Amino acid sequence: MTYMTNKTITDPCDLSFLNVFEELESSVRTYCRKFPVKFTKARNATLWDDTGKSYLDFLSCAGALNYGHNHPVLKSVLIDYLQSDGVTTSLDMHTSAKADFLETFNRQILRPRGLKYKIQFTGPTGTNAIEAALKVARKATGRSNVVAFTNGFHGMTLGSLALTANGEDRKSGGTGLSDTVRMPYYDYFGEGVDTVTYLDKIISDPAGGIDKPAAIVLETVQGEGGLNVASRRWLRDLSNFAKRENILLIVDEVQTGCGRTGSFFSFERASLEPDLVCLSKSIGGFGLPMAIVLIKSDLDTQNPGEHSGTFRGNNLAFICARHALDFWNDAAFVNHLENNIQILKDKLDHIARTHAQHGLLVKGLGLMKGVDVHDPLLARRIQNDMFAQGVILETCGPKNQIIKIMPPLTIEDDDLVRGLDILEQVITAQLRDMEKG
Amino acid sequence: MTYMTNKTITDPCDLSFLNVFEELESSVRTYCRKFPVKFTKARNATLWDDTGKSYLDFLSCAGALNYGHNHPVLKSVLIDYLQSDGVTTSLDMHTSAKADFLETFNRQILRPRGLKYKIQFTGPTGTNAIEAALKVARKATGRSNVVAFTNGFHGMTLGSLALTANGEDRKSGGTGLSDTVRMPYYDYFGEGVDTVTYLDKIISDPAGGIDKPAAIVLETVQGEGGLNVASRRWLRDLSNFAKRENILLIVDEVQTGCGRTGSFFSFERASLEPDLVCLSKSIGGFGLPMAIVLIKSDLDTQNPGEHSGTFRGNNLAFICARHALDFWNDAAFVNHLENNIQILKDKLDHIARTHAQHGLLVKGLGLMKGVDVHDPLLARRIQNDMFAQGVILETCGPKNQIIKIMPPLTIEDDDLVRGLDILEQVITAQLRDMEKG
Amino acid sequence: MTYMTNKTITDPCDLSFLNVFEELESSVRTYCRKFPVKFTKARNATLWDDTGKSYLDFLSCAGALNYGHNHPVLKSVLIDYLQSDGVTTSLDMHTSAKADFLETFNRQILRPRGLKYKIQFTGPTGTNAIEAALKVARKATGRSNVVAFTNGFHGMTLGSLALTANGEDRKSGGTGLSDTVRMPYYDYFGEGVDTVTYLDKIISDPAGGIDKPAAIVLETVQGEGGLNVASRRWLRDLSNFAKRENILLIVDEVQTGCGRTGSFFSFERASLEPDLVCLSKSIGGFGLPMAIVLIKSDLDTQNPGEHSGTFRGNNLAFICARHALDFWNDAAFVNHLENNIQILKDKLDHIARTHAQHGLLVKGLGLMKGVDVHDPLLARRIQNDMFAQGVILETCGPKNQIIKIMPPLTIEDDDLVRGLDILEQVITAQLRDMEKG
Amino acid sequence: MTYMTNKTITDPCDLSFLNVFEELESSVRTYCRKFPVKFTKARNATLWDDTGKSYLDFLSCAGALNYGHNHPVLKSVLIDYLQSDGVTTSLDMHTSAKADFLETFNRQILRPRGLKYKIQFTGPTGTNAIEAALKVARKATGRSNVVAFTNGFHGMTLGSLALTANGEDRKSGGTGLSDTVRMPYYDYFGEGVDTVTYLDKIISDPAGGIDKPAAIVLETVQGEGGLNVASRRWLRDLSNFAKRENILLIVDEVQTGCGRTGSFFSFERASLEPDLVCLSKSIGGFGLPMAIVLIKSDLDTQNPGEHSGTFRGNNLAFICARHALDFWNDAAFVNHLENNIQILKDKLDHIARTHAQHGLLVKGLGLMKGVDVHDPLLARRIQNDMFAQGVILETCGPKNQIIKIMPPLTIEDDDLVRGLDILEQVITAQLRDMEKG
Repeated sequence: MTYMTNKTITDPCDLSFLNVFEELESSVRTYCRKFPVKFTKARNATLWDDTGKSYLDFLSCAGALNYGHNHPVLKSVLIDYLQSDGVTTSLDMHTSAKADFLETFNRQILRPRGLKYKIQFTGPTGTNAIEAALKVARKATGRSNVVAFTNGFHGMTLGSLALTANGEDRKSGGTGLSDTVRMPYYDYFGEGVDTVTYLDKIISDPAGGIDKPAAIVLETVQGEGGLNVASRRWLRDLSNFAKRENILLIVDEVQTGCGRTGSFFSFERASLEPDLVCLSKSIGGFGLPMAIVLIKSDLDTQNPGEHSGTFRGNNLAFICARHALDFWNDAAFVNHLENNIQILKDKLDHIARTHAQHGLLVKGLGLMKGVDVHDPLLARRIQNDMFAQGVILETCGPKNQIIKIMPPLTIEDDDLVRGLDILEQVITAQLRDMEKG
Repeated sequence: MTYMTNKTITDPCDLSFLNVFEELESSVRTYCRKFPVKFTKARNATLWDDTGKSYLDFLSCAGALNYGHNHPVLKSVLIDYLQSDGVTTSLDMHTSAKADFLETFNRQILRPRGLKYKIQFTGPTGTNAIEAALKVARKATGRSNVVAFTNGFHGMTLGSLALTANGEDRKSGGTGLSDTVRMPYYDYFGEGVDTVTYLDKIISDPAGGIDKPAAIVLETVQGEGGLNVASRRWLRDLSNFAKRENILLIVDEVQTGCGRTGSFFSFERASLEPDLVCLSKSIGGFGLPMAIVLIKSDLDTQNPGEHSGTFRGNNLAFICARHALDFWNDAAFVNHLENNIQILKDKLDHIARTHAQHGLLVKGLGLMKGVDVHDPLLARRIQNDMFAQGVILETCGPKNQIIKIMPPLTIEDDDLVRGLDILEQVITAQLRDMEKG
Repeated sequence: MTYMTNKTITDPCDLSFLNVFEELESSVRTYCRKFPVKFTKARNATLWDDTGKSYLDFLSCAGALNYGHNHPVLKSVLIDYLQSDGVTTSLDMHTSAKADFLETFNRQILRPRGLKYKIQFTGPTGTNAIEAALKVARKATGRSNVVAFTNGFHGMTLGSLALTANGEDRKSGGTGLSDTVRMPYYDYFGEGVDTVTYLDKIISDPAGGIDKPAAIVLETVQGEGGLNVASRRWLRDLSNFAKRENILLIVDEVQTGCGRTGSFFSFERASLEPDLVCLSKSIGGFGLPMAIVLIKSDLDTQNPGEHSGTFRGNNLAFICARHALDFWNDAAFVNHLENNIQILKDKLDHIARTHAQHGLLVKGLGLMKGVDVHDPLLARRIQNDMFAQGVILETCGPKNQIIKIMPPLTIEDDDLVRGLDILEQVITAQLRDMEKG
Repeated sequence: MTYMTNKTITDPCDLSFLNVFEELESSVRTYCRKFPVKFTKARNATLWDDTGKSYLDFLSCAGALNYGHNHPVLKSVLIDYLQSDGVTTSLDMHTSAKADFLETFNRQILRPRGLKYKIQFTGPTGTNAIEAALKVARKATGRSNVVAFTNGFHGMTLGSLALTANGEDRKSGGTGLSDTVRMPYYDYFGEGVDTVTYLDKIISDPAGGIDKPAAIVLETVQGEGGLNVASRRWLRDLSNFAKRENILLIVDEVQTGCGRTGSFFSFERASLEPDLVCLSKSIGGFGLPMAIVLIKSDLDTQNPGEHSGTFRGNNLAFICARHALDFWNDAAFVNHLENNIQILKDKLDHIARTHAQHGLLVKGLGLMKGVDVHDPLLARRIQNDMFAQGVILETCGPKNQIIKIMPPLTIEDDDLVRGLDILEQVITAQLRDMEKG
């Protein structure tokens, strides 16, 4: 018996399962409204709904599926682990699976990059990792204020929400969001205004009016905020400023990490050594909930139990995470990724050039790219058309005016090209319609 | 190949795996310090370390393993699901696994109890569910203040932390914890003082100085706070007061839920109908991260996407969760649980009676009980001796002065009796030592 | 030329001056709505309006005129000072007037009571003094949380407002009021419940959920809150608890101070030695804005300029304040005060006894007393009738259900008796009307 | 008997009065440390100490003495009022003195400028007025966030302190300062960066991360912050932006108002019509504590009593205030002021030109000007030398690196020239010493 033979699922005429969501699920659900089908199975970059129809996945669960759906290697070790009655969940107790992950992470990821960190396992979501990192930073510095950037996104629980820039998100808290100062991200003023200089000036000014921060929380590429890519120079200036002022640099790699921008950590391109790094989404390899914070040893000052949470020991995730790390020393994997990045870049540049008169803007880095079409309604229509043609993708940016392309790193190049061809057709058609008015 | 045949795990002389935690894991880890071994596999109430030594589990991952480790039914459906390439993770998109969970939860749990709720899937931890519930309550009422109780525990992210009472936990935030008012829990003043009357008076008083709250966040039995059991009368009075004043009642069932106190929801014994209910820990059945919030329809006012999070769609958990729900209509399961509850109650009462001169206090409800030995050092020594004899349990209460017994609901009665016999011996020996001085 | 000969004032037919308030003054004005006349001059307990009608003052500018209107001694020194071109205002520079005040305050007030304090001159209002005291306490302890009591009133600027209990007042802030914990005042639970015991328990409990406070802010008699008089025992228990826990005791003497309750400081009756004392209202003697904070030497840790404000050097107030202090060593003044207190007490007790069937409750202490008539509308009608008969007084309490009697300490006994006779008649008439229904 | 004949004051050998401050006054006192003498009397721009030595006053009580010390006209009406037993203090009851002030303020100040405001009398300090204005703005908009600028100063009570930029001031609060966003003031980035454009962009951006503010709190010339003068263009752009976004503009005229910058309101030069205006310091005319908030009618939405305070009815101040307003229609007064402004401007420009090689910067506007000497120690030495030569002035700016010249508006031109000549000599000598090294 496999789950898929369940009668209610295989009968394509039975729509009762769709009713169940209307009847029972909270109004807050959102992705399902854009993709109103019921998915049943998935492999790499392909999803199937319960009628058997297939979809190309250019969303990758918002970055949690960098290695695709049901990667056979990871699935195999996971099933083996389950069959051996491996420990499933373990709080923060020692387990073989955790030891193996720690050792492998150090060997495959940290050591080759000359990085040295202590690793904190937090509640298995990005926002829990951010909250944990804030605690570490506030304790280590004895300060409470934190700098976050325009268009930043760092999560939806209250501590992270204070860092998140989107106004609708912020309002959802229903209470004060304090101890955060908003600063302009790279290029926020446009040409010629260096926002690190501003940050430096206002914080160094004894009457700048900004309480000295414990930390700066940074995405090197802003995902939700619109695929804004900070320049290397700006990142280094920011890092140097932080070091000079003894302000901790927390890099939020929740979406950018695990290779999404081309290297395992997105900060590698600027040779940063952040004080704290938050990882989640794809760190678990198989889409399983997991999150960690990397902490420089001298900042690892928390007492036992000072931060806690039940699901910090998701061993199923550890097993998959550990094996996914091996990919990063596999030349074939890395080459395939680089090839995909090139395909994506070339195609988006081509689309933008073709429609130069509409000022389309290619944004992002690595396999986290997109096209700013400037008009939220247009973006929404493109998203709908893509779905109609079997491609799942999301929009981002302050007004959701950007088409975001985020396939699994492991997507077959045929699939990638096919999906991008569809994108070109859809954009072309939509722009033509718009011109016709 | 199974994971367990991995050489580094099966060689009992190789201690390098223990070093890896010292070297690489953050200082904040805590349970592993009390149980300094490395666990590899587990079944129902038994854990094994990497030397093959077995342990009896009276901790159940702090309540996340009510159905024991690697329950064969759940393991089987999980492996089937994996083998069929079922969707692993899906944000808040529709999946067959989610539909099945929703439908089953409604049929097996809500409907038989006359309850009607919308279900919100949140980030898969208890604290995420609490944060989500606070957002719902604050939005629905337009108020921001929230009542929480002395000795309450509701999580460690900033929104939940404001509700949590423990001083060390609170300090960990490193920033202000606002918009929460602390009120005395049931019996906090001792005999004769009705704390609901106080709450009513101070909130009804136009100059009571308490801003009218959006919600009261309640554990009907306080887990971390010391196994304090609110009386039915008090619970009903509180609920009636909240209703009268149009203040929402949020019941935190993260630890008490899924049968831990004897019924699926702990609030059933007082016939409450909370406005919001938070479930996590054992809701996923198999120890997999999952959390939901139950919301009365008229309070389900959030916009699509108003709260979000990547891992809200942990389908592996949905699959296990759904099948675990069936247990609650299985007479054998329910009888077994009731029998276990009786065994635990009788034994703890016996221990307390035997050592009446030490004033040992039996606390808690269902399979969430313990013995208050009043002295944190004594409690710690008992915990250590239990571990030395192969039983894993934790302490709780404001000073960690309470021995907490929380085995899987599914523990074999032999195992339960055996563990409790060891507890009796350990307590007896420790008290004798203490008397000798 | 005297101001009073100004034509627009002496012409009783010219009502244009009343229009000016409607047209130009903000809607927030309130006392003038209850006493819709225009006052022009005043002496001791008598006010005159611009038509020449006189009024008996049982309000004393909410306690700022303990020595009556235009006390001839104070007026004389003030005019002399002005005529000599004495320094009017001086920031916190040294002036003769300030030196004289400091020396006299120490000699006449502190030394005879065995008290030793440093004196901080703050912005000249009660709320500025409270804000200043909070800063001192928070700095000296390194803690931020503060305890305030049910029905407490401490001012309307944001720091003080957080301490103030009245819900309408609190709402006026329009932003979060944090770092304050509300505790039940003396007798708030009624008989048999000792609220200091509760405070002690919840603060000593490591999981009580109350962050350890910097200070407790206390009125020994609650003015606005309803003339609630804490017992000596309770005050001493509170003080001892605070001392034991190293929590600072701030006594707010803004309304109770300068003899209002019978002794110069209201805390004298319980032999307290508060860590900080806030004085304003009558400290300036002549109704001139002035406020000071008394600080135990070891808590006087602020840097120069750490708190500031332009009008901290109101030398006209210092001159009057200094000479008013002499009254406290004048036996005639003290005897007169005691006699007035006795008259007030006897009359209110008599009124309550006479109408025992209505449960009238005599409240308060010294010359700060009142009658709780339980019904806000009744209280309002009594206030109106009193005004119609030429007596000015206010209501207080959470619902403004209490008639508050607060004449100048220096009121002639004839005037006091006359006003109280009117009160008796008014209450009697109103109760009779009520009975008739 | 006049106060000045008091023996302790007239005996120049008696230094005991100086000891009294050491012994009894709090460590927080600050101006007196820079001017360690005891002042006794004063007339216009001259102060005398108790030894009879005279000082030229270039400080004007931080702007509270725009009409000089003991202005004979104001003194005369004040003494007359006192002698007639005029009401001294009156909460917010109607008095003749208040009516007269209201009517005159409308006639002499508002109407000629085409302004229409309701007037709120607040606690008589600048910070109380700011707190009151914030309440009005937050209530009228239903928003809580407020924009304040780099280097802004708005007071030291908690609500105002959140707006104040100086780091030392901010720390003094000892608790969170929330609901304020700091924005760069005019020219804060230097040439070519328009900070209103930035403000507009970040607030209009749905993911700018700044919660929409209730109000912008503005000094058109920053006093404490360094005599920074916003350009007319910038002020108008800011005002237009605020209007467009329905954000209230609160102009803090506490220091700049009552003619300090040349016109009665400093905002007149940019033809602004602020939604709210805060006045204090010199509004009372004679150095007497008083503060008002001007409110556009449609924003005057507070309930009676929603903001309160005992000393809102300082009738002695009203009397002086009312007569000081007449000066503004007295051509001689206005001409004299303009002449003084020219003298000050010319002299400071001359000093800066003379020492061009030191980059001295003339800052400020009207009779609120200064010289930025860039070096705090140099500024302090200049201040000390000035005092040694009998001139009292203060420093300002984030590092106290600016010599601030703020004489009474009514200073005799001889005195002004004499003081400025001393300033030139002192600066020249100090710069020469510095060059010598």
